[in-house]
Amino acid sequence: MNADSFAAHLAADRARVDACLAQLFDARQAAAPRLEAAMRHGLLVGGKRLRPLLVYLAGRALGASDEALDAPAAAIELVHAYSLVHDDLPAMDDDDLRRGQPTVHRAFDEATAILAGDALQTLAFEVLARAAHPRLPALMLALASAAGRDGMVGGQALDLAAVGGHPDVEALATMHAHKTGALIRAAVRMGALTAVAEHDPRVGALDRYATALGLAFQIHDDVLDVTGDTRTLGKTSGADAARDKPTYPALLGLERARRKASELTDEALLALAPLGEAGEPLAQLARYMIERDH
Amino acid sequence: MNADSFAAHLAADRARVDACLAQLFDARQAAAPRLEAAMRHGLLVGGKRLRPLLVYLAGRALGASDEALDAPAAAIELVHAYSLVHDDLPAMDDDDLRRGQPTVHRAFDEATAILAGDALQTLAFEVLARAAHPRLPALMLALASAAGRDGMVGGQALDLAAVGGHPDVEALATMHAHKTGALIRAAVRMGALTAVAEHDPRVGALDRYATALGLAFQIHDDVLDVTGDTRTLGKTSGADAARDKPTYPALLGLERARRKASELTDEALLALAPLGEAGEPLAQLARYMIERDH
Repeated sequence: MNADSFAAHLAADRARVDACLAQLFDARQAAAPRLEAAMRHGLLVGGKRLRPLLVYLAGRALGASDEALDAPAAAIELVHAYSLVHDDLPAMDDDDLRRGQPTVHRAFDEATAILAGDALQTLAFEVLARAAHPRLPALMLALASAAGRDGMVGGQALDLAAVGGHPDVEALATMHAHKTGALIRAAVRMGALTAVAEHDPRVGALDRYATALGLAFQIHDDVLDVTGDTRTLGKTSGADAARDKPTYPALLGLERARRKASELTDEALLALAPLGEAGEPLAQLARYMIERDH
Repeated sequence: MNADSFAAHLAADRARVDACLAQLFDARQAAAPRLEAAMRHGLLVGGKRLRPLLVYLAGRALGASDEALDAPAAAIELVHAYSLVHDDLPAMDDDDLRRGQPTVHRAFDEATAILAGDALQTLAFEVLARAAHPRLPALMLALASAAGRDGMVGGQALDLAAVGGHPDVEALATMHAHKTGALIRAAVRMGALTAVAEHDPRVGALDRYATALGLAFQIHDDVLDVTGDTRTLGKTSGADAARDKPTYPALLGLERARRKASELTDEALLALAPLGEAGEPLAQLARYMIERDH
């Protein structure tokens, strides 16, 4: 597939998951309308939807239907969205802008943002439960263990502890493997497990792909924070440096950080070999993610 | 069972769920030790464990084994504990004491309390997933729909909106049905669904029991906030009035509020009729809950 038709393909998948997410708020009697407005704000404003894209591409590569992939795709985006809402809170990163819009606690208030994040997390598991896939236990476990203390939230705690400190590259990689890597791996794993059982060797191959891709993605994000501008990023550029957050460019220099991201992308592509032709869209996504400028 | 042996029976179940919860933190390499210490603090300090008790008693009444009930009992307490950690935050109720101990954000810090609450919620779903009960979809759905925007979190949002306002008794009942009632119903429902399928008529009977019990419990809690002292409650007494929160005693007067709680308890007992002898422990629990002074 050429770059233009691949981009159109991603746009269609984004529209697909956006429709699934929007449906969660349609035609229902909200118990607490302001809460739901805050949840929608956190969920529906912009967003690259990379994790749902990974669910669709990984799942299709192993033969899952789009319909079966909708629930895991929506669930992982709900977890991602909840984490951003809480991450932006004054007690955490204290961000005013996210995806070019006021953050949830700025658009609403702090208490509502805490509750909206909480309810977005719950909704992730609810969406997954409703789909009642035959491998629901494995799908839930993939999502929960990636989201919780051993994954994303653990990584956020490590990140908080690192502000103002001087971690080495290894400590930074550990933090990122938890904070952002775990959920990216879970996206790929949930896509795969929707199609095949855990013992299928392609599940392991896809996990190697996702592990390398997740770190490449984070290093690239760090690089963009240095080189991007606020308008393109939709968030405040240079925010990491201003906050004295350790980043790859700070530790390795910009050029070595760029090279590291590119090596990891090659590693991700190599991991796809056992999938043959079926892995091509995932390879294109890896290249696409590392070439993006926002 | 006489009152003393029933109390011993409850103490044994409390010890059982406490052991399950403690095990979640034993013999593991924590990614972020401070986060886990905060999670333990929020989870393990004190607590009446009423929701797990309801899981055990409802499940046993319909024939479930203790072993099968451990995961739902732990899961519901994890959700309850997460909600308390977030509820106590400065942006929410801003409480310094909980169960006679400093709240999590006082013992640790605000960011850690937000993350600890988040991770406790995730852990609830992880524990449930690991048990992989044949009716996992129904169990998860019971927990998630009770915890989220249509249940507990929705109720917390309604509660926030009500501070300083003048809701009537009906609006107050709606708020409580969400904020505390939904999780109490979920506890009973999860116990029941561990034993039997949804279409068993005893599931409906137990739901009527739990609905009445949940509201009775909340009114009794409001009453204790007026009549109890800080030392016995383990939290600041008179806090609701000080915060201008609407309560049953404020709307109905103390005596009518007490009578309402007692009537609801009778309703709960009546709902147990289809269970015959097997419902007796649940009846005793209802009487016990309404007689407690903390």
